[in-house]
Amino acid sequence: MTPYEAIRLFAKTLGNLEKWMDKAEEYAKGRGFEVDVLAQARLAPDQYSFVKQVQSACDQAKYAAAYLSGGKAPSHADTEQTFAELRQRIRKTLDYVSSVPESAFANADQQKVAPAWLGGRWFRGSDYLVEMAIPNFFFHASMAYAILRHNGVKLGKMDYIGGITTQEK
Amino acid sequence: MTPYEAIRLFAKTLGNLEKWMDKAEEYAKGRGFEVDVLAQARLAPDQYSFVKQVQSACDQAKYAAAYLSGGKAPSHADTEQTFAELRQRIRKTLDYVSSVPESAFANADQQKVAPAWLGGRWFRGSDYLVEMAIPNFFFHASMAYAILRHNGVKLGKMDYIGGITTQEK
Repeated sequence: MTPYEAIRLFAKTLGNLEKWMDKAEEYAKGRGFEVDVLAQARLAPDQYSFVKQVQSACDQAKYAAAYLSGGKAPSHADTEQTFAELRQRIRKTLDYVSSVPESAFANADQQKVAPAWLGGRWFRGSDYLVEMAIPNFFFHASMAYAILRHNGVKLGKMDYIGGITTQEK
Repeated sequence: MTPYEAIRLFAKTLGNLEKWMDKAEEYAKGRGFEVDVLAQARLAPDQYSFVKQVQSACDQAKYAAAYLSGGKAPSHADTEQTFAELRQRIRKTLDYVSSVPESAFANADQQKVAPAWLGGRWFRGSDYLVEMAIPNFFFHASMAYAILRHNGVKLGKMDYIGGITTQEK
């Protein structure tokens, strides 16, 4: 999987997340509650809420696209409170991520990735992709899914996976 | 990330999972309950239990190693009920996965991956890795983490990520 393919996989999964949110809205409507209640839901009192899981999944995709292409990620204030606002956040993320062409990832493995929390140390691009971006992205996407699932939204594994590319026998 | 690096990342994460289980055991001891209660815990009544999430994470790693190397995965009956048995399952999986040498993945992208559930259709190895193995592996690993976290086990993001490879400034 090339760095560009990883970014496309993140984008695909954010698109799947929009559909999980559609299902959450249907479920809320059917049960007669306000869907934005789920925006603040969480699996443990000291774990991120749905809002923060979605923001984090978006940021993992955005920063991976920026770091691995040597570009600069757009800044997105973490001010979302509602499903409608989260949808805008996902859209802004997808707009940025899809604006980075495949050619920009030519030196991805050699990029020097120095997030502030490393305090001056840095990741080789190849290590950052494998050790941080991929596990972290799927962690936050899975937690967003799990929070909805835990609250009764009708989701199944293929909602998580999305479209697949298979060949004729 | 090469197919071999993906398999190594899965193996690393299964090693992390063993440490989450250590923390679950400490937590159970401190709270005075039997840790195997958590083996049957789940986030939703119609979602997999912790046992099944661990079995599934193991199987995603095992089958990815087999399919992408053109090998045959060892058969593991899904009979585990306890943490001790799940630890054996993880160990058997790691033994197999680490027995497949890097050279065996030389044709990974071109492997014809035909799981029975596709009913005769098949994945190109490269599509299988990106669309199925990676998202699915991290889904089940994250759900195992989430079930423990939801039940109060003291886990944080770096328990999930495990060791990282950084460079001096």
